Amino acid sequence: MTTPLHDPGRRGFASDNYAGVHPEILVAIADANGGHQVSYGADVYTARLQEVLVDQFGAGVQGFGVFNGTGANVVGLQSLLPRWGAVICADTAHINTDENGAPERVAGIKLLTVPTTDGKLRPADLDRFPRNPEDVHHPLPEVVSITESTELGTAYTPDEIAALADRAHELGLTVHMDGSRLANAAAGQQVSLRSLTADAGVDVVSLGGTKNGLLFGELVLVINPDEVSGLAYLQKLNMQLASKMRFLSVQFISLLEGDLWRRSAGHANAMATRLRTALQDRIDAGTIAGIGFTQQTQANTILATLPAGVADRVRQQYAFYDWNPGLGEVRWVCSFDTTEDDVDGFVAALETELKV
Amino acid sequence: MTTPLHDPGRRGFASDNYAGVHPEILVAIADANGGHQVSYGADVYTARLQEVLVDQFGAGVQGFGVFNGTGANVVGLQSLLPRWGAVICADTAHINTDENGAPERVAGIKLLTVPTTDGKLRPADLDRFPRNPEDVHHPLPEVVSITESTELGTAYTPDEIAALADRAHELGLTVHMDGSRLANAAAGQQVSLRSLTADAGVDVVSLGGTKNGLLFGELVLVINPDEVSGLAYLQKLNMQLASKMRFLSVQFISLLEGDLWRRSAGHANAMATRLRTALQDRIDAGTIAGIGFTQQTQANTILATLPAGVADRVRQQYAFYDWNPGLGEVRWVCSFDTTEDDVDGFVAALETELKV
Amino acid sequence: MTTPLHDPGRRGFASDNYAGVHPEILVAIADANGGHQVSYGADVYTARLQEVLVDQFGAGVQGFGVFNGTGANVVGLQSLLPRWGAVICADTAHINTDENGAPERVAGIKLLTVPTTDGKLRPADLDRFPRNPEDVHHPLPEVVSITESTELGTAYTPDEIAALADRAHELGLTVHMDGSRLANAAAGQQVSLRSLTADAGVDVVSLGGTKNGLLFGELVLVINPDEVSGLAYLQKLNMQLASKMRFLSVQFISLLEGDLWRRSAGHANAMATRLRTALQDRIDAGTIAGIGFTQQTQANTILATLPAGVADRVRQQYAFYDWNPGLGEVRWVCSFDTTEDDVDGFVAALETELKV
Amino acid sequence: MTTPLHDPGRRGFASDNYAGVHPEILVAIADANGGHQVSYGADVYTARLQEVLVDQFGAGVQGFGVFNGTGANVVGLQSLLPRWGAVICADTAHINTDENGAPERVAGIKLLTVPTTDGKLRPADLDRFPRNPEDVHHPLPEVVSITESTELGTAYTPDEIAALADRAHELGLTVHMDGSRLANAAAGQQVSLRSLTADAGVDVVSLGGTKNGLLFGELVLVINPDEVSGLAYLQKLNMQLASKMRFLSVQFISLLEGDLWRRSAGHANAMATRLRTALQDRIDAGTIAGIGFTQQTQANTILATLPAGVADRVRQQYAFYDWNPGLGEVRWVCSFDTTEDDVDGFVAALETELKV
Repeated sequence: MTTPLHDPGRRGFASDNYAGVHPEILVAIADANGGHQVSYGADVYTARLQEVLVDQFGAGVQGFGVFNGTGANVVGLQSLLPRWGAVICADTAHINTDENGAPERVAGIKLLTVPTTDGKLRPADLDRFPRNPEDVHHPLPEVVSITESTELGTAYTPDEIAALADRAHELGLTVHMDGSRLANAAAGQQVSLRSLTADAGVDVVSLGGTKNGLLFGELVLVINPDEVSGLAYLQKLNMQLASKMRFLSVQFISLLEGDLWRRSAGHANAMATRLRTALQDRIDAGTIAGIGFTQQTQANTILATLPAGVADRVRQQYAFYDWNPGLGEVRWVCSFDTTEDDVDGFVAALETELKV
Repeated sequence: MTTPLHDPGRRGFASDNYAGVHPEILVAIADANGGHQVSYGADVYTARLQEVLVDQFGAGVQGFGVFNGTGANVVGLQSLLPRWGAVICADTAHINTDENGAPERVAGIKLLTVPTTDGKLRPADLDRFPRNPEDVHHPLPEVVSITESTELGTAYTPDEIAALADRAHELGLTVHMDGSRLANAAAGQQVSLRSLTADAGVDVVSLGGTKNGLLFGELVLVINPDEVSGLAYLQKLNMQLASKMRFLSVQFISLLEGDLWRRSAGHANAMATRLRTALQDRIDAGTIAGIGFTQQTQANTILATLPAGVADRVRQQYAFYDWNPGLGEVRWVCSFDTTEDDVDGFVAALETELKV
Repeated sequence: MTTPLHDPGRRGFASDNYAGVHPEILVAIADANGGHQVSYGADVYTARLQEVLVDQFGAGVQGFGVFNGTGANVVGLQSLLPRWGAVICADTAHINTDENGAPERVAGIKLLTVPTTDGKLRPADLDRFPRNPEDVHHPLPEVVSITESTELGTAYTPDEIAALADRAHELGLTVHMDGSRLANAAAGQQVSLRSLTADAGVDVVSLGGTKNGLLFGELVLVINPDEVSGLAYLQKLNMQLASKMRFLSVQFISLLEGDLWRRSAGHANAMATRLRTALQDRIDAGTIAGIGFTQQTQANTILATLPAGVADRVRQQYAFYDWNPGLGEVRWVCSFDTTEDDVDGFVAALETELKV
Repeated sequence: MTTPLHDPGRRGFASDNYAGVHPEILVAIADANGGHQVSYGADVYTARLQEVLVDQFGAGVQGFGVFNGTGANVVGLQSLLPRWGAVICADTAHINTDENGAPERVAGIKLLTVPTTDGKLRPADLDRFPRNPEDVHHPLPEVVSITESTELGTAYTPDEIAALADRAHELGLTVHMDGSRLANAAAGQQVSLRSLTADAGVDVVSLGGTKNGLLFGELVLVINPDEVSGLAYLQKLNMQLASKMRFLSVQFISLLEGDLWRRSAGHANAMATRLRTALQDRIDAGTIAGIGFTQQTQANTILATLPAGVADRVRQQYAFYDWNPGLGEVRWVCSFDTTEDDVDGFVAALETELKV
């Protein structure tokens, strides 16, 4: 098969999952191919990855490769939870809304959800669910789970995470991060991955790869090994243990050993900024109207509202999703392979619809 | 990274999971890269794969890509089972012994196990677990699950599968096949994939890819859609839905659209035959002794017994696993990339230990 | 043992679960004792109970005895749900807040919660969770679960239930009722049990017994058998199948065959009304202050707010629970054995604290 | 209701679950009635029960009331197991055969079954499942579960249990006992309950009540608190926490505080012995033929084989169950209320069929 079935020149704003594989990642996979390697993670690439993780996140961290984000969240949360534990999260959290109940169905986890305005939990939110070990009727909160960057395109600062983690630890909770777009949060704030995780007191991270240019793969990153148990068993029994693990590990080596993670995520962010700025300039100039932005854009995701009908017409050229149809809210996501031309073309398409 | 961390020239007989990716598969992945494709399976490659599956297995079949064999088994079995259903299987079945209880833990499935001599169920075995819907105390058998080729290196013939499936259907059971090495069974018997599955009355297959040269990926192949429900939901909630599904699907297109599946599996089988024949010739000639074969070799796996100490010494050169340590039984597996030199070198190493 | 370990004269307002067994129920149990009866529900009492249920709820209904309310809810919901189904409920629902996550942990159920002001869902609330079978990411709503009377002491009218059930059925949802205090709702509105359930379109009810004077026991009442599957299996595998079922069934015969259910629940309601009226009279007369009622009292439960410290002091005489400590909100529950003297004494104790 | 629906004079040999409630237990329940007691186990009866348990089983034990035997087994096993643990048991164990997979479905437990001749595990059986914490593929054995007395009517001696428990502990396993008929085993051997449990090294017991004359109720008895975690949570989330716990606890006080447990179980055993002896005498005298005993009778259960047709004809007078229909094997169980006349009548009925 040499002619692709799809048009490789076509790109949209639907999801960073619509993008393919970063060329450097494909090279890394090919370089790791050939010959035999021990399966299920006892290979040299997985060993090397551990060193790369220590370089990025600090001594003592350990990464367990899993297939996708839901797998990472379920395995990571289970490792932090007894069978009777509950997880505090924003009601917009991916674990609550987009995983078809995998945390509940596969892992028996109770989610305690908090409404937020921007997808971010605050320390005071943790007090909504008192942690009384004598009370067997209410699920016992054991973990707080945050998403960085959030599903709404916002991002916690290192200080915000640290304040939340401090309060969580005071209350006897551990801290889980759904970091499927952690790289975007770090690139957006020009801080290290470590500053948003290990240094801020996070205990376990679902470290995203797929949305940042990998073929597939996420890591359950254990920062605080004292708080987890059974990770290798959970990775296996939750159907997340790749037999040919070397190919998952080598992708993360390639992503994290140099600056590929920051280049890719930073580019995606820059394209989101370019898109929002171009539209805002036109709003400010009064040349377009009817569009609004419902959240800050601190990573690679933009939430916007459009007049009725506009979204469907623009979608004929550029794919993107509705977010909250009742509000006319849509979501635009940029990825490592979004080009300036993509953005400019999309702006032009919107401008045609929204011009005053 | 240009220098691989491992020695690509090193191969052993531990597992077909130790092998890497077939070069044609890597090319297919690269060809499918670039541009944007709808995520989570609504892409053109996944659509094309359905056509390829119909060509191979017959009209009406449908494939759902999943990450690994345990995922395929859990999703496929759940799709065939109510919450109170049970599965009859050989006690040597991978679902019983090697998945850390994923069927029980993730899917709440009760396994009803049957001891066998060769890893293969017979129709009469199904009568061991009467199916009485009025009896709420005993788990209700709903599915019989067989492995083709088996964990012991044996294979069912099309007639054997048909006889088992006929009896199962008479009893109100459906038939699931763990086909992680189905290609080896088909290549070994020089029959089609279809003859061992759709034509023999199998309802759902876990169709293996990884052990036959894919980077990752298996399919839940639905042959009888009347017997399954909720497959797309189960794929998702069991954490088996790849966001960049095009890369999973394109591998299966590459494997199944031509004869790559048969070339690769047939080669692995041929290498296993070469290995066994070479050793049997030396046994017959009386030049080596102390080795025995405990099962027929009808695919790419050989079970053999060795005198104490031999396995560990040979393993210093060639990796392989103990199978039943109490019996001195070991397992050797050949893969698509096993060479004649690998086999000959391994025979020589064994000969050194076993010579009379 | 002839001297009880406790003081049988002591009663409070903590819970209808603090009360004991209605004397008529104890007699019924004793009458069913002696000799042998088939275990696990194939006894004459369980058969007779089915007739009683038909008398109360209409032709075709069937009751499955279970041990407690959580058991009833889990079994009933599972019988209505595929593995991928979700349940819409008020965020104050017992299944969400008071069962330590049993629906999630035991049954893998995803709850989709709705904030309410009075514990009651409205038809429009169902539109918050669109039911799109094509969408595998969001949990698929399959059931709406309501509590009658609610955890807050309010009650749905027959018309309110019918409107909700109509909308639910239009949307392809079924209707589950947590009827742990259904008798109180029916007695309070002087309507039949049937008018609030079968006649209003409810599909499955958790029919409470324990809170209305039984020793133990609830029923999963199937009104619409077309919507459920596997109930007898689910009753068993969820550890809710009593071996000596005759004693569970005979209690419900005693409760439902005559008017014991209405006498007991009506009395509890009357005592709650007496309590609230007595306090309201004093508020209106200006002789007490600082107390408020946060919900209507339409059954046997009162929610009230008290000034800081009052609750703890009054609790030295009469047990009751905090409801929302942050608001100073407390809960008072009357039961079949609450006496007018209990109420008057409690009013006096409150009056002492609250007098102006 | 004053006329019972059933004939209190009718008894059979089907199950100790067919019997009703011992009169002393009904009295105890009535004595505990009246007034209010804290629900969910914080009552004075549950507190007193703990003292009774210490008297019977030794210092430090603690009992958690649950509704039935399956509930006791699931809660007790979960308390001993991480999510990835497995349980070694006889393939005839109730947890494997008669609980509709509750351990797998509700608790995600993997059972590792051992064939036995008499329902009893031996220390060497534990070596069949090596406990290698490095191996994530095979379920990790964490618990051995034995039934005392067994499902086949045999019983372990204290020494047999101690030998098994010693080996289990050496291997890093804990010991669970399904003691649904523990009283029968103790009465049969004229030893204490403690000698078969705490003194023999058992860690957690499912202590039966229902089969020995209770209305309902079992205990999860924790002997070794260091090995369990989360019991109160597990009791709740597994739907086993009775709201009116005082009535469950007072039954166990009545059963265990004096010798009611031994009187009742000893009587049941004596009736089984009377039955077997009467038949054996006739066999030995050559007056009946065609009957055989397939297991020793060391408690209140007899397994026997009968010629074709005999069982069904005798069952017209006396209820009992087939055990292994393929072998013509049946099961007879005596209970606390079996009379000598019942036995003699049953012997006569069998004699009529079997006379030479």
